[in-house]
Amino acid sequence: MTPGTIHGVGLGPGSQDLMSVRADRLIRGATHVAYFRKKGRRGHARSIVEGLLAPDAIEIPLEYPVTTEIPVDDPRYNELLAAFYDKQVAQLTEIAAAGQDVVVLCEGDPFFYGSFMHLYTRLQGRVPVAVVPGITGMSAAWTATGRPVTWGDDVLTVLMGTLPEAALVEHIAWTDALVVMKIGRNLDKLRRALVRAGRDDEAWLIEYAAMPQERIRPFREVGDSVPYFSILVIHGNGRRP
Amino acid sequence: MTPGTIHGVGLGPGSQDLMSVRADRLIRGATHVAYFRKKGRRGHARSIVEGLLAPDAIEIPLEYPVTTEIPVDDPRYNELLAAFYDKQVAQLTEIAAAGQDVVVLCEGDPFFYGSFMHLYTRLQGRVPVAVVPGITGMSAAWTATGRPVTWGDDVLTVLMGTLPEAALVEHIAWTDALVVMKIGRNLDKLRRALVRAGRDDEAWLIEYAAMPQERIRPFREVGDSVPYFSILVIHGNGRRP
Repeated sequence: MTPGTIHGVGLGPGSQDLMSVRADRLIRGATHVAYFRKKGRRGHARSIVEGLLAPDAIEIPLEYPVTTEIPVDDPRYNELLAAFYDKQVAQLTEIAAAGQDVVVLCEGDPFFYGSFMHLYTRLQGRVPVAVVPGITGMSAAWTATGRPVTWGDDVLTVLMGTLPEAALVEHIAWTDALVVMKIGRNLDKLRRALVRAGRDDEAWLIEYAAMPQERIRPFREVGDSVPYFSILVIHGNGRRP
Repeated sequence: MTPGTIHGVGLGPGSQDLMSVRADRLIRGATHVAYFRKKGRRGHARSIVEGLLAPDAIEIPLEYPVTTEIPVDDPRYNELLAAFYDKQVAQLTEIAAAGQDVVVLCEGDPFFYGSFMHLYTRLQGRVPVAVVPGITGMSAAWTATGRPVTWGDDVLTVLMGTLPEAALVEHIAWTDALVVMKIGRNLDKLRRALVRAGRDDEAWLIEYAAMPQERIRPFREVGDSVPYFSILVIHGNGRRP
């Protein structure tokens, strides 16, 4: 039997019409649709495709055993997640081996800080795998600000808020344009880093970019907490005619 | 009369089905379609949408007065391009003022090192302008390598090959994942910078990502020249369970 293909499909930033034509076609035609979600939740990826799935599509929720309950540097975190990915890979491999394709829904772009990457590296060499790139959340974020992010020779740096404060300061001070993701619990540290780098007044915070709740503010107006879907942007000011 | 809207529409990396559903809809429905091109050429943006335009769509080629004939640091380069953008903005504003929408085709993502940005900043406040983000060429490039580009806390840096060698060396040495664009005439300088940063063996060169001529090679196998559509990628190796 010809094995099926596991498709890691980028959904883009969260607006249904910002997924690619290829993604749209694969999702509408899918017989098996898998997606990550937190236990007890609907799942954001699943919400994005609401109304697109075939009525008889088989849904395969991949439920994280842990998200923020254990710190990522706790060895148990890695053990639990590795076991989780192995189990899901076994499940998906079985479906593909039976000749069925599976579409795995991936927020943003699958190869850019995505959860699918952990399945992908385990699936490689076992069954056919294909990846459809997507519009990143950061593209939606800088588009939402109504201002181009990079000009001419501008350097763009993308940082995770989970980095140590000293690393944040150095990278923020030494780039033209900046994107920071995974802000949540790192908000205070990120604010200190921006101040120490002398760039807090240039930063914008975009919540829920390209989604109905989209909100754009200067970072200095941000209070004590931000939602999970928050991205910080500093625009470059490079050469322009 | 209600003015029309100028839509800067991201086409993505070059494959028709990698444009967004929103872009596809706007382009198929457009009465006026503008696109940049080099004088005497068809224009790459225009090629991407071949077969999608309405038969009676009015096409508005925006022909660069200069591309690589004058160095970008020559004052005449800026003067010529500024005059060119002003003229095109006058043309587009006139169409919008007459109540017609215009779709401006933008390769990749319009706000990410795009030519449309130069029209956008001049159009703002004069007529309604809307921007549709797109899948970047770099997303297509790292997807083509078959290997995720950023994991965990990885830092991603995006550089233009036009930067001075010393700046390239420092940024290449001090990031996890790397993307370099605008390589063309800067190939030798970029190669020296990679060697000085000790990272030439980690680099991949992707030509024509997501296009029929797509080609992926270790950077060390690259010869004396690369085509315009070339992107260098170094993958991050961050935390993964």
